[in-house]
Amino acid sequence: MAAPFIKPRVPRGMRDILPEQMIPRQYVIGVIREVFEEFGFEPLQTPALELSEVLTGKYGPDAEKLIYQAGHVGGKEDISLRYDLSVPLCRVIAMYPQLPKPFKRYQIDPVWRAERPQKGRYRQFFQCDADTVGSESMLADAENVNLVYQVLTRLGFKQFEVNINDRKLITGIGQFAGVPTEQLGGLYRSIDKLDKIGLAGVRSELTENQIPEPVIEKLLVLLEIEGDAETVLNALSEQLDEFEVAREGISELEELIGYLTIFGVPEEFYKVNVAMVRGLEYYTGPIYETVVEEPKIGSITGGGRYDELIGSFSRQGHPATGTSFGIERIIDVMEEFDMFPSTVGKTVTEVLVTVFDADLASESLKVATLLRQSGIRTEVYSRPTRIGTQMKYADTKGIPYAVILGSEEVEAGTVVVRNLANREQHIVPRAELVEKIKELSASVT
Amino acid sequence: MAAPFIKPRVPRGMRDILPEQMIPRQYVIGVIREVFEEFGFEPLQTPALELSEVLTGKYGPDAEKLIYQAGHVGGKEDISLRYDLSVPLCRVIAMYPQLPKPFKRYQIDPVWRAERPQKGRYRQFFQCDADTVGSESMLADAENVNLVYQVLTRLGFKQFEVNINDRKLITGIGQFAGVPTEQLGGLYRSIDKLDKIGLAGVRSELTENQIPEPVIEKLLVLLEIEGDAETVLNALSEQLDEFEVAREGISELEELIGYLTIFGVPEEFYKVNVAMVRGLEYYTGPIYETVVEEPKIGSITGGGRYDELIGSFSRQGHPATGTSFGIERIIDVMEEFDMFPSTVGKTVTEVLVTVFDADLASESLKVATLLRQSGIRTEVYSRPTRIGTQMKYADTKGIPYAVILGSEEVEAGTVVVRNLANREQHIVPRAELVEKIKELSASVT
Repeated sequence: MAAPFIKPRVPRGMRDILPEQMIPRQYVIGVIREVFEEFGFEPLQTPALELSEVLTGKYGPDAEKLIYQAGHVGGKEDISLRYDLSVPLCRVIAMYPQLPKPFKRYQIDPVWRAERPQKGRYRQFFQCDADTVGSESMLADAENVNLVYQVLTRLGFKQFEVNINDRKLITGIGQFAGVPTEQLGGLYRSIDKLDKIGLAGVRSELTENQIPEPVIEKLLVLLEIEGDAETVLNALSEQLDEFEVAREGISELEELIGYLTIFGVPEEFYKVNVAMVRGLEYYTGPIYETVVEEPKIGSITGGGRYDELIGSFSRQGHPATGTSFGIERIIDVMEEFDMFPSTVGKTVTEVLVTVFDADLASESLKVATLLRQSGIRTEVYSRPTRIGTQMKYADTKGIPYAVILGSEEVEAGTVVVRNLANREQHIVPRAELVEKIKELSASVT
Repeated sequence: MAAPFIKPRVPRGMRDILPEQMIPRQYVIGVIREVFEEFGFEPLQTPALELSEVLTGKYGPDAEKLIYQAGHVGGKEDISLRYDLSVPLCRVIAMYPQLPKPFKRYQIDPVWRAERPQKGRYRQFFQCDADTVGSESMLADAENVNLVYQVLTRLGFKQFEVNINDRKLITGIGQFAGVPTEQLGGLYRSIDKLDKIGLAGVRSELTENQIPEPVIEKLLVLLEIEGDAETVLNALSEQLDEFEVAREGISELEELIGYLTIFGVPEEFYKVNVAMVRGLEYYTGPIYETVVEEPKIGSITGGGRYDELIGSFSRQGHPATGTSFGIERIIDVMEEFDMFPSTVGKTVTEVLVTVFDADLASESLKVATLLRQSGIRTEVYSRPTRIGTQMKYADTKGIPYAVILGSEEVEAGTVVVRNLANREQHIVPRAELVEKIKELSASVT
């Protein structure tokens, strides 16, 4: 009687993360959490579902179309799946005024966006954010950049660059160029492509967009500035001195970079890049975005200051700044460059204890308990069958060691330890098993 | 210009988990994960959204009404938020036939149910499941009960009882009582209340439900059996010997309990309880549920064998068994009985480094970096202000230590370490700061 069955599928743009992918993922999230907490960021969790009115008007009309709606039988509220973690944070700040400020929180959780799925882009993905609410000081922004440096370094990244800019500086550049407000968006979109299309490309894009030639010349002078942060900021100061908002932006960046130096973040890992704009509308001050040279994968972290967003939920506004880690891309880079430590394998299991037959099962269970009591991650093969099948299972899964107890071993009080990688076998007294496994593992790492 | 603003609220039945609650929560989840991995369960993550057809017909009509639907502009699929983690697991098994069996996975993730909210019951809550797919052996069920024992013991539970029963035994009891199939549901619902309403209560419920007096007498004989697992199973054997399905159930339980003894699970922590039924329709073999005496909070873990559920997704069925931890209730119990270790505080932060003023900020940042490099979780007060305000902040948050650097200390190369709990202050050379913090922390724990 074959029952009718449902074809097992997931919705478009969704995916399962199988154990082999979850293990490196948990490692990355674990390192990030560790650094977040080392910086004094506290965990927060908001519900996946928010009232739609909380999300409306925050992300711009194009983004808003990507929000998932939700509902249930008899439900009267208009609810949505969260689109990011920043807007829910702002709601939390407004809802719990008693939270001490500065409020430093992190959240590592999925968000949902009905974007067109493509390679490496899913409709559910994790965001991984650290934010500080209630400090207008550049110290909080410097902490964000320092956090990026510490996380990436601890994950083993050797080559990355945090691009730093300031929304006030961008506004000032618009004034400097004398571009009317309605053209500003197009102007910045062109400038933002500098890294991709080069100076000549930006020039022709601006010409196409009917930016007057003298304005283009002025802009190119700014975009051509190169050098370390201090050099760039000095040159910008000279050019933009008469624009107050630009001066403010420059002075914010000077302060931020001063703190970075004190924190000991090496200069090679950041630069001032006036062509880096970032998409989200709500930024108001410094913005930062990390790129890697190889592979060409876009930014792996992004963030900035958004002093006005909380004001949309609360008459009492709060300055705020944060940064976000693109863990999906970070994992991609780490996989491409084989950056995971050897302890991060295909499986969490260190030892498979085989079960010879039903009669000898009890001895296997005792040995498993012994190993687990020493913190060694141990699976008992839960379905007595041929030892060959059990070995094949361990091999397929990538379990490093198998422990075999046949009747001879049980009688002699010994076990056989098999190293699945090199096929070596060791007969050891049961009392020495834990030591032996530890010794073998240590020699690999 | 006060902008119009949105009242900050969450949808009905939803909640935010603020840092003070997240910290104990992360501790509990961390311990559970550690034990899961020690048993060789591997992490799996399925998307929050599933095709509705995957969920339909699995939970019974009443439960099905509680499922949240989801959708987006232009979306053509009928999608829902997951209702549990078991059905998505079955989908995964059917979708990736290449996964080696036995497949042992855990998943700790939220699920959504539009139940009437009440104290302690939310419409988003975490499930925390470990399952083994592909083993028909009672060894896998015994591992589940052993897992419950290990997790609860490691969390500090001293008093709990895993009630163990078997669906086959329940079916056999129905045959023994001679109850027609259409009355079986009502019969089991009454029996399931034994712990709450006692034998007399069950008797009068059965009478009300028009179960014939001789049947009630027969049932009460079974329900009156008391004693350790062996005694109960022997007595059941005598009574139910002529019912094959009951014999099968009893023999499964004998085997399961035999393994528990070998695993060294003490007898005081489990019992055979034929009155424990469990709600979910898909169970086929042993079932288990953990209760605590105090507080009266219902079951804190539940699980069992469901050999036929995967067959609804795949022509090739697979035996499966698993157990689930009710982390919300576990946390409630642990809070009520103050079971969290002293290291699990109100904040993750161990040290607040104060910032005296803008001029001295750089010294504070250097000290913060020093502490972080030693793995000490350190917040820099990111908004230079009066030291009194900073101390009050540390106090409110429950940060154990503050480090103060005024001009005197900077000149002398020292820092002041203040213990916020007892108000003691220590002046220490900067080079000895890390040691001092470690020493102070060690003396507390």
